Amino acid sequence: MSYEARLAERGIALPPTPQPVALYAPAVKVGAFLFVSGQIARHEGKLVHPGKLGREVTVAQGREAARTAILNVLAAAKGALGSLDNVERVVRLAVYVASAEGFVEQPQVADGASELLVEVFGQNGLPARAAIGVAELPVGTCVEIEAIFEVK
Amino acid sequence: MSYEARLAERGIALPPTPQPVALYAPAVKVGAFLFVSGQIARHEGKLVHPGKLGREVTVAQGREAARTAILNVLAAAKGALGSLDNVERVVRLAVYVASAEGFVEQPQVADGASELLVEVFGQNGLPARAAIGVAELPVGTCVEIEAIFEVK
Amino acid sequence: MSYEARLAERGIALPPTPQPVALYAPAVKVGAFLFVSGQIARHEGKLVHPGKLGREVTVAQGREAARTAILNVLAAAKGALGSLDNVERVVRLAVYVASAEGFVEQPQVADGASELLVEVFGQNGLPARAAIGVAELPVGTCVEIEAIFEVK
Repeated sequence: MSYEARLAERGIALPPTPQPVALYAPAVKVGAFLFVSGQIARHEGKLVHPGKLGREVTVAQGREAARTAILNVLAAAKGALGSLDNVERVVRLAVYVASAEGFVEQPQVADGASELLVEVFGQNGLPARAAIGVAELPVGTCVEIEAIFEVK
Repeated sequence: MSYEARLAERGIALPPTPQPVALYAPAVKVGAFLFVSGQIARHEGKLVHPGKLGREVTVAQGREAARTAILNVLAAAKGALGSLDNVERVVRLAVYVASAEGFVEQPQVADGASELLVEVFGQNGLPARAAIGVAELPVGTCVEIEAIFEVK
Repeated sequence: MSYEARLAERGIALPPTPQPVALYAPAVKVGAFLFVSGQIARHEGKLVHPGKLGREVTVAQGREAARTAILNVLAAAKGALGSLDNVERVVRLAVYVASAEGFVEQPQVADGASELLVEVFGQNGLPARAAIGVAELPVGTCVEIEAIFEVK
């Protein structure tokens, strides 16, 4: 089954291609690689669970935010490739989690993104990944995700 | 017009190739990619606007620091490639911004680097980009920038 | 001399291939590149010097932690490639250092990883590198390291 068909089957709607809020490209394709800019947890113009993990955002909320951010990543990839069926596999994910003092469950938050990727791409959705806890993120998002895809 | 000519025309002087302050290479070339090490906002041996955004460094100062750091990135790229005319395009930029509690304008700071890239490389200068707010950076720089270029 | 032989000669024992603690792949190979997931400073199930640099962890301890983390990176690379002799060179290292307020010696900590790489791979072990100070890291590790290798 195609990845686009799987998205449709599961009722997962991609948001519109994210428009850059500053001076960068949503995605850059070089050879077999597509580099996607860091995407934040914004849905229909509104932040999903803004703030920091370990303070005003719970792990469950952080996972929802990570799912929102990865959907924006996929929308950027689709905008660059025309269709997600042109994805060969997910290669690398960097998951930046805004973290209050003492919050150390970044991997659990990042799994909110990985789960969506595996749902869509199966084993090809399992990325090499770094999950880290950062001090602050743009406009107060609690999660930002950057990705590299292999393309067909 | 060549990129080197455009630099000259605009009176943009590249600093000398940055010398590593620790055990790493300024840049590593693999196939069509050049990976450039994280460069800080240092000019002629002196930090430009050290400290944190949202505390002792303003957004305008942070943009100047980002411009300084990206000039060091370009100097490292030139050191590895001989000439910036061997650059095909800028692929990915990671802009790490030292951020005090509550500072969330990392993209505005990072634009200080993107603007210089677009000035030099035109549309080929628009990178996939991640801008994040980190706790601390080496020697107290307020911005560190890491880059990937496609080379000819 | 082969890299595996050099490891043996120097009595450097690689840990077992790190098992993912969440939903990601230890490493992903695409063409000439191997992307290795962020590895933490854990040895035999136990964190090496947990906490933050500039508070409970000294620079010397942070270097030991960086060495532990890079050994886990090498173990993940070996797991993916069968043998470290299939490595052509180290390309890029991101060294995330959990940093308390005012700690700015991230490069010195990261050198604990670079030194091991140079010991094993010689000049091919010198990576493009970014060393940054982050707010928090998974399970309280003081260092996390992510890597890209060129493979034969």
